[in-house]
Amino acid sequence: MTFSRLIRFANKGETHYGDAVLTDGITDTRLAKKAHKITGDIYGEYTIDTSETLDIEELLCPLAPKDINTVRLLGLNYAAHAKMAGVEVPKYPILFYKPRTSVCGPNDPIIVPEIARTDPDTNESEAELVIVMGKSGKNLRKESALEYVLGYCIGNDVSQRTWSGERGGGQYSLGKMYDNYAPIGPAIAAPAAFGNPDDTNLKAHVNDSLRQDSSTKDMVFDCAELVSFLSQGCTLLPGDLIFTGTPLELPKFCVSDRLFLKENDIVTLELEGVGTIANKVVYEYNAK
Amino acid sequence: MTFSRLIRFANKGETHYGDAVLTDGITDTRLAKKAHKITGDIYGEYTIDTSETLDIEELLCPLAPKDINTVRLLGLNYAAHAKMAGVEVPKYPILFYKPRTSVCGPNDPIIVPEIARTDPDTNESEAELVIVMGKSGKNLRKESALEYVLGYCIGNDVSQRTWSGERGGGQYSLGKMYDNYAPIGPAIAAPAAFGNPDDTNLKAHVNDSLRQDSSTKDMVFDCAELVSFLSQGCTLLPGDLIFTGTPLELPKFCVSDRLFLKENDIVTLELEGVGTIANKVVYEYNAK
Repeated sequence: MTFSRLIRFANKGETHYGDAVLTDGITDTRLAKKAHKITGDIYGEYTIDTSETLDIEELLCPLAPKDINTVRLLGLNYAAHAKMAGVEVPKYPILFYKPRTSVCGPNDPIIVPEIARTDPDTNESEAELVIVMGKSGKNLRKESALEYVLGYCIGNDVSQRTWSGERGGGQYSLGKMYDNYAPIGPAIAAPAAFGNPDDTNLKAHVNDSLRQDSSTKDMVFDCAELVSFLSQGCTLLPGDLIFTGTPLELPKFCVSDRLFLKENDIVTLELEGVGTIANKVVYEYNAK
Repeated sequence: MTFSRLIRFANKGETHYGDAVLTDGITDTRLAKKAHKITGDIYGEYTIDTSETLDIEELLCPLAPKDINTVRLLGLNYAAHAKMAGVEVPKYPILFYKPRTSVCGPNDPIIVPEIARTDPDTNESEAELVIVMGKSGKNLRKESALEYVLGYCIGNDVSQRTWSGERGGGQYSLGKMYDNYAPIGPAIAAPAAFGNPDDTNLKAHVNDSLRQDSSTKDMVFDCAELVSFLSQGCTLLPGDLIFTGTPLELPKFCVSDRLFLKENDIVTLELEGVGTIANKVVYEYNAK
């Protein structure tokens, strides 16, 4: 028996992996109240205990830190986004990384550190489909690449534009690296439960304002192409995450009303059939 | 008791961490024949068994895969290198990454995969001082940053210029990501044994030809500045590696005689007081 919606949750002071149980008409896994506990290795042998249904007292990041490996992200993987940025649609995937420590859960704060508060502040959110690898593989053919996938979730590639841009020396890394700049969740949907990852809808709200509303069918490189390409000469590991790029914002936010994140904003990203992550922007003040 | 030169080695079918024992006038840890076995957590509590001296039957990567976290690298951190590349000396460190799977040991092959064999081949080696983090830390002040360091070694930021350049969409990542494109070693020298990391000599040979001969005193950002900067808003973990950038090649190789790596070349990098890593360039051919 395999999971449908892999979560991590707290119950009676303990943390468990679980398979979320959707009841009472709830469709957003972030709002699920119950789960079946999973025991074992989520990348290998595990069992789902369906004899007991546990309360989800707190929903956590769907992967424990020890189960997260390399975090890869793609740039300009939606043609309209590339066009807006004034660059050509990429001929090859554009790869960058975040450290493992940037990954957090569906209800965690986006922590904006002092160094990321430039004048003006230039933090933005980017809704992205995230591929979670489940098996080790190298030189994968496109035809079999998705057999190595554990599942899919939504992720936020939070980006500080000043550090990713003019202060980054041409590399995106500096504006992407901070703790909690990569919320994911609410669950990792198994491929069988998820449907076609290349034709699914993503939405992003900042507070009540709809900012992104798109489909992965507009990706330049689809999921199988990305997994295959990234595995050429490079062993992918269980727990590797691939953020597949962000779609264009709604047109009015791209130009005239470009809005950066502010303290206390709530960023809510939604992946069709899986649910939402909702992360509050919190400013961190260093001890003096 | 703490180690001086942390290695990993094979002895009678088992793999151990060890503290290399230099005897018989040997100064290069790669050529050491004996070690004291280390038991425990190299980032926490460990013991060095000096009651017995074991044979180093095979010298391995100084860190086990499970003990390697995020691999960060710096671009253009030597003023002369930046000048040669035709760009300004960077105002902030330029950050990029390699996946953990790229790290290998002092005698391992540099495996050039099919995708990295463009016409012409454009693989190059880059000798760099590598900082190995030993403790978790965030928002570190420059004054205390080096207290979080486990030690230092030499590393090769092997780079495929076509994929890092014209095919990379502006990001260095694609030409840096392959398995075994980051040999390190031969040992991790403890800070007390190593001396000043900001005034140490690096050399690189390709076969018998001297290609780089420089000192870390020419770095734009020194080790303490790099660790402090990279920890702003971003938790560094034990087992994080920081490749501190490569010095300029000897002038004749920068312009007229620029030579890329060829199959069966031996790349030997040397770090003063620690020793060498010597990695052979091996071409990988995919199964058809």
